[in-house]
Amino acid sequence: MDAASAPGSKWSQLTQGNVFLEFVDVTLRGCAQVMFQSNPLTGLLFFAAIFVGAYGEGNPAVAYGAVLGTAVATFTGLNLKDRTSWKAGLYGYNGCLVGAALPTFLDVTPILWLCIILGSVVSVIVTICIADILKTWKVAALTAPFVLVTWTMLLASYAFGGLTTSALPVPNLPHDLIAVNSSLFDGIDFLHGSFYGISEVFLFSSVIGGVLLLAGLAVSSLWAAVFAFLGSVLAIIVASVLQAEHTSINNGMYAFSAVLTAIALGSTFNQPSWRVLIYTLIGVIFTVFVQGALNTLLTPIGIPTLTMPFVLASWLFLVPNKDVMPTHRQ
Amino acid sequence: MDAASAPGSKWSQLTQGNVFLEFVDVTLRGCAQVMFQSNPLTGLLFFAAIFVGAYGEGNPAVAYGAVLGTAVATFTGLNLKDRTSWKAGLYGYNGCLVGAALPTFLDVTPILWLCIILGSVVSVIVTICIADILKTWKVAALTAPFVLVTWTMLLASYAFGGLTTSALPVPNLPHDLIAVNSSLFDGIDFLHGSFYGISEVFLFSSVIGGVLLLAGLAVSSLWAAVFAFLGSVLAIIVASVLQAEHTSINNGMYAFSAVLTAIALGSTFNQPSWRVLIYTLIGVIFTVFVQGALNTLLTPIGIPTLTMPFVLASWLFLVPNKDVMPTHRQ
Amino acid sequence: MDAASAPGSKWSQLTQGNVFLEFVDVTLRGCAQVMFQSNPLTGLLFFAAIFVGAYGEGNPAVAYGAVLGTAVATFTGLNLKDRTSWKAGLYGYNGCLVGAALPTFLDVTPILWLCIILGSVVSVIVTICIADILKTWKVAALTAPFVLVTWTMLLASYAFGGLTTSALPVPNLPHDLIAVNSSLFDGIDFLHGSFYGISEVFLFSSVIGGVLLLAGLAVSSLWAAVFAFLGSVLAIIVASVLQAEHTSINNGMYAFSAVLTAIALGSTFNQPSWRVLIYTLIGVIFTVFVQGALNTLLTPIGIPTLTMPFVLASWLFLVPNKDVMPTHRQ
Repeated sequence: MDAASAPGSKWSQLTQGNVFLEFVDVTLRGCAQVMFQSNPLTGLLFFAAIFVGAYGEGNPAVAYGAVLGTAVATFTGLNLKDRTSWKAGLYGYNGCLVGAALPTFLDVTPILWLCIILGSVVSVIVTICIADILKTWKVAALTAPFVLVTWTMLLASYAFGGLTTSALPVPNLPHDLIAVNSSLFDGIDFLHGSFYGISEVFLFSSVIGGVLLLAGLAVSSLWAAVFAFLGSVLAIIVASVLQAEHTSINNGMYAFSAVLTAIALGSTFNQPSWRVLIYTLIGVIFTVFVQGALNTLLTPIGIPTLTMPFVLASWLFLVPNKDVMPTHRQ
Repeated sequence: MDAASAPGSKWSQLTQGNVFLEFVDVTLRGCAQVMFQSNPLTGLLFFAAIFVGAYGEGNPAVAYGAVLGTAVATFTGLNLKDRTSWKAGLYGYNGCLVGAALPTFLDVTPILWLCIILGSVVSVIVTICIADILKTWKVAALTAPFVLVTWTMLLASYAFGGLTTSALPVPNLPHDLIAVNSSLFDGIDFLHGSFYGISEVFLFSSVIGGVLLLAGLAVSSLWAAVFAFLGSVLAIIVASVLQAEHTSINNGMYAFSAVLTAIALGSTFNQPSWRVLIYTLIGVIFTVFVQGALNTLLTPIGIPTLTMPFVLASWLFLVPNKDVMPTHRQ
Repeated sequence: MDAASAPGSKWSQLTQGNVFLEFVDVTLRGCAQVMFQSNPLTGLLFFAAIFVGAYGEGNPAVAYGAVLGTAVATFTGLNLKDRTSWKAGLYGYNGCLVGAALPTFLDVTPILWLCIILGSVVSVIVTICIADILKTWKVAALTAPFVLVTWTMLLASYAFGGLTTSALPVPNLPHDLIAVNSSLFDGIDFLHGSFYGISEVFLFSSVIGGVLLLAGLAVSSLWAAVFAFLGSVLAIIVASVLQAEHTSINNGMYAFSAVLTAIALGSTFNQPSWRVLIYTLIGVIFTVFVQGALNTLLTPIGIPTLTMPFVLASWLFLVPNKDVMPTHRQ
């Protein structure tokens, strides 16, 4: 925990006395919660990364959508009784991702902005719904609300002429990969791939963006930064051994879900230990298989996996946590 | 509550003393429960609507199937311990819809009638199964049992030569809508569409049928009738703004799930209030998105959405009910 | 319960004093648990059946995979606190099926053996995860862990050049069956089909294998053997009446899930009685519909149903068990 997020810090005192500054603080924490951190400075660095990435890819609407989505979701969360979760930014992070994802895949029109607002509001309702269901087994909603809301709107875009797109994968029947490489790691760019894998959590490929995200993690939790980076590298190795498509590997498409699995299993819901390390290792490797499986599963309906491989793999490994781990956080 | 359903009424006294009349009473309530009402007169008006619609579309088997399905499911429910739910018609409504849906999509053969009987029996088992699971979060099964049983049989019809069909959508890969209209509401028939939207809950398009269903709602709950009609109108507006296919909008295909969401969120599980009105408004709008999304999702496997958009959207909005609403019914 | 599994028997005394023999005992029970039996002799007969079947179909890797999978899963289960479930073989049976299924559908390469090991380890984690979730409603995980892990890897094989296959169904859009037979049971081979239906639980077609499996069941529970055989016969009759494809019926493809449903509903989770018999009858008939439905549902993504029809139908009929049955086992 850094200076900004500490209870007695100057920033903390400022936000307590001012409704507007408190809202800014919680919105920043909302962005930071995409990678499980409740820290306004982390959120600021994450937003910086998003702006670098969005302008770098020539699609600024992604960055403004992320800000809008986080703010709308945070504002919606004000209507709920649970103030502790609200202050930690736990109602904001799914809106952040909805706001970043919709302009990534759909054309930027007035209707799209309305969809971002509606999607962010609904993401809060989905968050409460899933959290209510999952608290029976003491597991968090993770980014499932983001994925479900965004999938709904992307699928609906095929039925609605008002939501046009040129960035969604074309619906197709799955085909086997034909190319089998003689040399496993030939053409794999580990350095760029690893940072892209981290930045693809926010749906863009940027080394500077990835570095900013790592820095944001580090100011809040060094272990989180370490697990994020190692998770990305491990995922690239596994995908290479399994001979996934090289372009996808190099763009970080097999790593971003693994990055989140690594942070969640390794540092957020467990205390680092040898046992946890092995469990996280298996979890990250299996996340790569789930990524490949969901790529196939979604081929006929033409939508991206988003972070669903992370959500499914992490739920799978978090529910048994108490049966497997000697000590664990909830 | 009208005269017929009141505890001390003449009809109520008749049914208590006669096993056959009690069975008729519960069967009628079973039909009424499709739209959340426990009222034999409502059920009678609903059955009248179904006969008008079925004969109007030249497929009387739909009406007789609905009667058979409700009766078989009600009879099956007699084997269970829970007599309170049975008397309210809560074991009958899914059988009613199974019996109406199967002859709508499959050819009328002797095997089809056996499937209606089996499907109605199994719909009771699915009802208990889902109710058991969902009572953990105090949410009702809604029409999920009907959808799951009917989907199973419609999907199975592709594998079974004994179940033939010419009314199922042809399996296909999703394609973008090409037509974008210059004028949003050009060609939208609000009046017919709104009544069709209500009657499509029972899978037919009929203005007279829609009026009879509204009358059936009104004798039991005026609020239910109001929310049903406004839900239908709102869904048509939303679908038009999003530029869904005009023929589908005019046939009520974007409205029938929204009608049920509006009744459920607005009047059945909440007391009408401003807060409830806004929540219902968001729920109905999101139901239209879920309808579009499921249309796309089911395209490759060639089955209709039935009322699943209503079920999913309403579960989503009902689980967080207690966190969102100051007072709520369970 | 036969001599070998009785607490005071010679084998039982041997296994208590020797870590290696205890491991062998639990591994054998793991194989037996595929059909709900905790009996080392049953496991031995089952393994014999698998070797007969695997060598008979010219694919010995299936048998060695089954042994490897059961052993790895049993070994993984050693790390858990729940020793009672471990000793009953409840952590082993999903690994057994993963080990049999992967070489059935994927080419036998070094990576495949690594996948069997990883899949068996993960099957234990999925087992705890699903058992944890389902204990809320007092229902067992059945073979869902096997199906989910294997589906993940088969789907992933489309994305990974390192996992090649020539035995998966080609992804396609569902089409109606054209052939409708004049005579229902013309060309149906009941005798072979019934035994194939039993042996297809382990993914092979063999009369001798089926007989060995029945013998294995009988030494542990005569009722289980009776329900298995009658379930297979009934499923073939139902599939024939519904006019499923005759080759599939004769190969036991409509029977293997029904066999497991029959054992589960008829003898494992209920005491045999008339009421149970009727409930099981409906369950088996509905399993055939679910089989047909899943065949259609999975057509576009090119993976087999495995035992998912059994899992879904049995969950559906087991959750309401306590509401339907006067007495029931948990």
